[in-house]
Amino acid sequence: MNNIIGVIGAGEASEEDCNVAGLIGEEIARQKCTLLCGAMGGVMEAACRGAKSLNGTTIGILPGTSKTEGNPFIDYPIVTGMGHGRNIIVVGSSDAIIAIGGSYGTLTEIAFALRLKIPIIGMNTWDVSPDIKKAQTPEMAVNLAIKLANSNS
Amino acid sequence: MNNIIGVIGAGEASEEDCNVAGLIGEEIARQKCTLLCGAMGGVMEAACRGAKSLNGTTIGILPGTSKTEGNPFIDYPIVTGMGHGRNIIVVGSSDAIIAIGGSYGTLTEIAFALRLKIPIIGMNTWDVSPDIKKAQTPEMAVNLAIKLANSNS
Amino acid sequence: MNNIIGVIGAGEASEEDCNVAGLIGEEIARQKCTLLCGAMGGVMEAACRGAKSLNGTTIGILPGTSKTEGNPFIDYPIVTGMGHGRNIIVVGSSDAIIAIGGSYGTLTEIAFALRLKIPIIGMNTWDVSPDIKKAQTPEMAVNLAIKLANSNS
Amino acid sequence: MNNIIGVIGAGEASEEDCNVAGLIGEEIARQKCTLLCGAMGGVMEAACRGAKSLNGTTIGILPGTSKTEGNPFIDYPIVTGMGHGRNIIVVGSSDAIIAIGGSYGTLTEIAFALRLKIPIIGMNTWDVSPDIKKAQTPEMAVNLAIKLANSNS
Repeated sequence: MNNIIGVIGAGEASEEDCNVAGLIGEEIARQKCTLLCGAMGGVMEAACRGAKSLNGTTIGILPGTSKTEGNPFIDYPIVTGMGHGRNIIVVGSSDAIIAIGGSYGTLTEIAFALRLKIPIIGMNTWDVSPDIKKAQTPEMAVNLAIKLANSNS
Repeated sequence: MNNIIGVIGAGEASEEDCNVAGLIGEEIARQKCTLLCGAMGGVMEAACRGAKSLNGTTIGILPGTSKTEGNPFIDYPIVTGMGHGRNIIVVGSSDAIIAIGGSYGTLTEIAFALRLKIPIIGMNTWDVSPDIKKAQTPEMAVNLAIKLANSNS
Repeated sequence: MNNIIGVIGAGEASEEDCNVAGLIGEEIARQKCTLLCGAMGGVMEAACRGAKSLNGTTIGILPGTSKTEGNPFIDYPIVTGMGHGRNIIVVGSSDAIIAIGGSYGTLTEIAFALRLKIPIIGMNTWDVSPDIKKAQTPEMAVNLAIKLANSNS
Repeated sequence: MNNIIGVIGAGEASEEDCNVAGLIGEEIARQKCTLLCGAMGGVMEAACRGAKSLNGTTIGILPGTSKTEGNPFIDYPIVTGMGHGRNIIVVGSSDAIIAIGGSYGTLTEIAFALRLKIPIIGMNTWDVSPDIKKAQTPEMAVNLAIKLANSNS
């Protein structure tokens, strides 16, 4: 299988962050990777919408107990019932992660990625470690994620 | 999307249970549903192998922290790091469940399915409730799972 | 420290099961053990009330995200936010378990106890294994729980 | 009951951080609060040792599946089997948190505290938000934790 790329960011996000997320979702689909995220709105929904617009595949790790709470662009909803506790599953299931903007919830995921040594690329997000790689464009972010995922496995 | 059918059973299972699981995996693929399971060996591996032999799609909810621990027929490995605690995610993410044989781990999943009112079909498994529906053949089990999933949603 | 005895049973329980749970809670306190449970009503609340009436110590493993949802007889509320997923923590944290009555949620806990080889005593509950020991009275149930906990460790 | 004060920090920590943790554990015991932590070594063990030296009460939220893996100063071991996923339980179960030093694992807990609006005091730790309150001494940290816990509830 191709890589699973996690996209993390806020459920309520700026228009700019959502635009970036949409382009990243498109690029993930174009590269035949699978997009995985926390299944909710904002950055997560924008990325899923982007991926589905190019017929990509999306997995959503839901916080609640109902499949219907996820955004409508999820192919495979995984129901955890763990609330924010599902964040570690989002991270651990990704071969590499792209963080876009984000608040404290996103910071938990960035810190889990750093702790678990999952490659992470940041765009306009928390700057807490040199291990968060930078990317200039959505295309470069996805290319770097794939490269790091493959060298990490 | 088509339904996600969960298949549960022991990681170390009898040849007979594995044969049934393989046929159920094939039928899930033939019906264009997605197979979801606990990602390990025995019944889980047999069902995934069956599904992949007909080009089906498989999701594995892994107990540990590494993707490599799952059986080799998993398309989408979800890494929980929760051990047996992942059983509730297997159940909650399924639109309907087919239980084949199984010991105490399978019983936790059957009980979660009954508690969460997820339709469940049993073949040669725990008989703890009339809400566990019976099926005579693998084909009938999958057809019943699809029917119950659709009437439950 | 003395043993942690888990008490499991339904959140909505019969008067008889609650009476038994109350006597078991009292006996756990009398024996200077700690009572651990799922923190909600019914059997759990009755057992905690019994333990506190004799100045015992109680731990509650809460399903939700707020300490206030637990019954008022919990000394140490542990907040999981995992819903029924917390059941495996109730079981794994107990040196021995006493099951009283109970429906499907209790069955998940009984099955986890059997899977994890945690000693379990049943009173008027699911009869799914000879490894569920029987006790005639609350006092005998607690004495047996302590004995099995000590021989298991 | 008195407050539950969470103490977070690395499992392998500097002597200075461990010394601070020990003094904080002592002060938590002196103030008749309960100390809760992730149950492992380093800062966690030092804090528990400090609390027990003054006859305080300690709760440990264990990552693994065995009670024996925790440090020897835990009164009430809670067995999660969730690995780092247990961090959200450490945070959610605390009325206020004191962070001492720490690496990425501690950062996940700080971020969860900020996300869940649990009061947090930092000593020589991640500086990612003005909502992490500063304290000059262990005594001041515990006093501030108690004050914030009471005004938060």
